[in-house]
Amino acid sequence: MAAPKLALLTSPQKNAILEAMAGLLAASQETILEANRTDLESSDLRPSSRDRLLLNPARLADMLAGIRAVISLPDPVGEVVADWVRPNGLRIRKVRVPLGVVGVIYESRPNVTVDAAVLAFKAGNAAVLRGGREAVHTNERLVELLNRAPGLPAGAIELLDSRTHESALELMRARGYVDVLVPRGGADLINRVVEQATVPVIETGAGNCHVYVDKEADLELADRIVINAKTQRPSVCNAAEKLLVHRDIAAEYVPRIVERLRAAGVEVRGDDLTRRLAGQDKVCVASREDWLTEYSDLKMAVAVVASLDEAIAHINRYSTQHSDAIVTRDAARAQRFLDQVDSAAVYWNASTRFTDGGEFGMGAEMGISTQKLHCRGPFALPELTSVKYQIVGTGQIRK
Amino acid sequence: MAAPKLALLTSPQKNAILEAMAGLLAASQETILEANRTDLESSDLRPSSRDRLLLNPARLADMLAGIRAVISLPDPVGEVVADWVRPNGLRIRKVRVPLGVVGVIYESRPNVTVDAAVLAFKAGNAAVLRGGREAVHTNERLVELLNRAPGLPAGAIELLDSRTHESALELMRARGYVDVLVPRGGADLINRVVEQATVPVIETGAGNCHVYVDKEADLELADRIVINAKTQRPSVCNAAEKLLVHRDIAAEYVPRIVERLRAAGVEVRGDDLTRRLAGQDKVCVASREDWLTEYSDLKMAVAVVASLDEAIAHINRYSTQHSDAIVTRDAARAQRFLDQVDSAAVYWNASTRFTDGGEFGMGAEMGISTQKLHCRGPFALPELTSVKYQIVGTGQIRK
Repeated sequence: MAAPKLALLTSPQKNAILEAMAGLLAASQETILEANRTDLESSDLRPSSRDRLLLNPARLADMLAGIRAVISLPDPVGEVVADWVRPNGLRIRKVRVPLGVVGVIYESRPNVTVDAAVLAFKAGNAAVLRGGREAVHTNERLVELLNRAPGLPAGAIELLDSRTHESALELMRARGYVDVLVPRGGADLINRVVEQATVPVIETGAGNCHVYVDKEADLELADRIVINAKTQRPSVCNAAEKLLVHRDIAAEYVPRIVERLRAAGVEVRGDDLTRRLAGQDKVCVASREDWLTEYSDLKMAVAVVASLDEAIAHINRYSTQHSDAIVTRDAARAQRFLDQVDSAAVYWNASTRFTDGGEFGMGAEMGISTQKLHCRGPFALPELTSVKYQIVGTGQIRK
Repeated sequence: MAAPKLALLTSPQKNAILEAMAGLLAASQETILEANRTDLESSDLRPSSRDRLLLNPARLADMLAGIRAVISLPDPVGEVVADWVRPNGLRIRKVRVPLGVVGVIYESRPNVTVDAAVLAFKAGNAAVLRGGREAVHTNERLVELLNRAPGLPAGAIELLDSRTHESALELMRARGYVDVLVPRGGADLINRVVEQATVPVIETGAGNCHVYVDKEADLELADRIVINAKTQRPSVCNAAEKLLVHRDIAAEYVPRIVERLRAAGVEVRGDDLTRRLAGQDKVCVASREDWLTEYSDLKMAVAVVASLDEAIAHINRYSTQHSDAIVTRDAARAQRFLDQVDSAAVYWNASTRFTDGGEFGMGAEMGISTQKLHCRGPFALPELTSVKYQIVGTGQIRK
């Protein structure tokens, strides 16, 4: 069991080990890329999945930069969160401690192997990783190198066999051994983990994000935000998938934004009014399924709403509670949106694309939680810890 | 859906509703006791379970006092946890919000119905309660009265049918509708919930708690703490179940504490050395099963350990990570114990019996979490909330 030893490492010890890890990866670039080539050759993936699996010198440099970023992050372990004395003289200190063992189940992106391992480690945790079978050689090489860092307790970073389904199932059901399980990947993976796991899970990822353009919106600003939120990187979870437009400005704004979206290569779907306003040849029919779907692609569904309340209700009904934005000049209407939309990140006059540990200034990110328990939104080191109560007495007993 | 309306209630509104609830219960004492008598007559319970089910005027008064305690607690909703501005001008505020819908599955104690409902409500949540079938009439009456409070949104407190197993299963699998599920009861109930739930769970309760008497202990103080931790209320989760004694003082201390435990009515079990030191007629054999068991009864298992490290290792192996104590005069040894024993509450020279929301000064308690995710140890209002990020921009887009 590595976890108890890891919990006792000091911050300088942990940072020295992280430096050594970065050095080991840097010194073995060639063998990492070779392992990655083996994976790429033996795999039978779609181009987008191949791209996620691919490593090259630039991506390896990003990995090393990621380790250095984690070195520079403050160590949350040992922080005294609260400290008080009871009338009976008991002194109670609430202290931040590592979670213990952090499990991560993910798909074929090898950078997750390194990101997850070093974040878990810096917060004093052991990591148990179960990556995609397509990345098996790359992941084995990476974990072997990370584990060579001098001073790292044996078993601190464990890679499960990704060739069998049993290893994933074992991890999901390792109650009492694994303290939290973070699934990183598509909706299927996440649903499977939530269904089958008996260890506590932090749900991540799915983003059916909305931009609502209010009747009081600056329409220039709305254009910028809608186009950015939809097209700047459509495959990621904080990209917008839906556009809601207030009825009072729909006649002006819907044709205009549909034109711009189409010019940017976006396939637009819409409700009846949207199609009438923009032209049925330009906007195809949005089904009920569309309002629920994260396209992760250059597609957007547009609806006209009668009021701010209807916009809020639509979002609370269909969104995945990830990131949703309002564009308006009216502060009171904006605050109502910020208060009543029940999502991890709610924006006023900004793109949904900022929901990200780096963009929030956290320095790194383990994932983006779309559940409300334990943590919500982007999370990194502090969220990979728990607390304990240390209570000092002088012989107090309960009456 | 009551949750969105509940989230928008102000603290004064919530406190007025809580006052009304207390008033309604107070005015209907007789009908509550009558419903309780119906339950007691129709149930076929062991005396200890009957006692948990029983209501009387004193217990009703405790219930009302509980509501008044919750009224006086600060409202966590709306607290700005953090507030910062990014270099691009985005202002990010991390704000405390209700979890949404809190599910509670429990056994036959009717006070849990009121405690759980009012704590969930004060933190802005809807409550979905599934109590034991033995308490069905009492719970129906209580929930009906609570729901009559003027201003309470319809559906704020829902009682599921406790006559069928399906209602419990539905609650456990209501992913997307229920934000957290708190099982309160014995190990069987908790295990069933953890096994079957797809909604996030806060595990509570099981307490296989230890007192370790170090070679540097003040033995008078050790006597007081051991006897109190074991006997003051043996049925509760923070009562001690195990006693570890350092080898260097075992010859003196083991016979003495075994004598005192027996005088207090405790059945003592022990390892070989304990039995030799105290007399095999006084101490029966402790099996491996004993070290794992929460007796919740006047029983205690005693082991002699060779060192502080062995004590820590024993506890980390067998305890339920609830509450464990060291008795010693040596501050360095105490701190090692506090740092290395991986439990929610770790004590130096005090009884384990203090692990309790009231004793910690929280004013109330929803339960005692024995998991590390979301919250650990006694938890109440702040732990029944989540956070959201409200982000205010001036048209920022991601480059």
